Amino acid sequence: MNVAIVLYDGFTALDAIGPYEVLSRLPGARVTFLAREAGPVRTDNQMLTILAEHSLAELPRPEIVLVPGGPGDVVERAGDEVLEWLRQADQTSTWTTSVCTGSLILAAAGLLAGRRATSHWLALEELRRLGVEAVSERVVFDGKLVTAAGVSAGIDMALTFAARIAGDTVAQAIQLGIEYDPQPPFDAGSPRSAPAEIVELVRGLSPRVQEQGTDALSVP
Amino acid sequence: MNVAIVLYDGFTALDAIGPYEVLSRLPGARVTFLAREAGPVRTDNQMLTILAEHSLAELPRPEIVLVPGGPGDVVERAGDEVLEWLRQADQTSTWTTSVCTGSLILAAAGLLAGRRATSHWLALEELRRLGVEAVSERVVFDGKLVTAAGVSAGIDMALTFAARIAGDTVAQAIQLGIEYDPQPPFDAGSPRSAPAEIVELVRGLSPRVQEQGTDALSVP
Repeated sequence: MNVAIVLYDGFTALDAIGPYEVLSRLPGARVTFLAREAGPVRTDNQMLTILAEHSLAELPRPEIVLVPGGPGDVVERAGDEVLEWLRQADQTSTWTTSVCTGSLILAAAGLLAGRRATSHWLALEELRRLGVEAVSERVVFDGKLVTAAGVSAGIDMALTFAARIAGDTVAQAIQLGIEYDPQPPFDAGSPRSAPAEIVELVRGLSPRVQEQGTDALSVP
Repeated sequence: MNVAIVLYDGFTALDAIGPYEVLSRLPGARVTFLAREAGPVRTDNQMLTILAEHSLAELPRPEIVLVPGGPGDVVERAGDEVLEWLRQADQTSTWTTSVCTGSLILAAAGLLAGRRATSHWLALEELRRLGVEAVSERVVFDGKLVTAAGVSAGIDMALTFAARIAGDTVAQAIQLGIEYDPQPPFDAGSPRSAPAEIVELVRGLSPRVQEQGTDALSVP
């Protein structure tokens, strides 16, 4: 089973690596990092470089497609070749998925029109403006289109569809293998649970709500 | 503030990328991926290559040191140069930390002798044999030595010491920025919570418990 993770300049690393860590453990899975051209790709904060081992053209028909998000104008940075590849790959994929603002890229490719989907909480309005029924949920299934909320939500998404692909026993074994027994030190991971002043702080730091944005907050 | 993440052949990606995603958002933080020599480093399953942008020698005195774990004999794969660099770096670091079996490397470097520390649940016995007071907790502080449990625990560890470094407000803002509001589909992330048959399945798949091991389970 081929899992293709599509990289582009300025993606957010954990969006891609969380699901990779889960899906690479599925029996028979082969995860491949792709980009317009094979070669190094820098993350949003320029502090990490991951190698895309193949170009998009080299893997046209993966079973699972995953698009990570990033800050700012991800659709522009992903570019037309990624959008076109996504449209083609979706025709034969078993699952077409995104994490965080990766759903804006799927929407721009025309793959989420009229569908239920989610994104980073700061990007839900933008997703709605793209004609998507944007909902504030952690993981959203609409047929074979699966979208996850911000950054860390990709781990939950991958475990959820790992169970659909290989059964609950395998998914639970993977969860235990990566010791995913989260114990965040605060209850601040969602705008519903975080203290109001933290929500306002983060919203104020995000240019996204003033049109073009970032979810790679470096809180000053 | 320099954060050095030390890579070596066959490390587990999420061990490194979870904390990177948190710590890179700290005000003034600069995360650098280091290895014996600068260049590409492959992860445990050979499906991902990350660039170490600098050699160990190029960053001798980071404020934060982080060592990820991996399957099998991580101490052997890390090698003497990493152990020696860790001993030197620890003399001036503010925090010396590990995720998963990275604690076996810190122990082999002599930095955990007699200290309380943790590791992947499958590696706690091995950690104990290295003279460490190995405990089954998610994140363990012993002075400036901080260790996290398996793979995904690095996110909790990084948020916890982000709060100590920059205060609760910043740590909560980072948590909200990465929307870390975990909703695992199963309660199977720890040997205490997982169904007994899942624990036995995963233990049986791990050569670690029969001496040299793997926590990169690909459950067949």
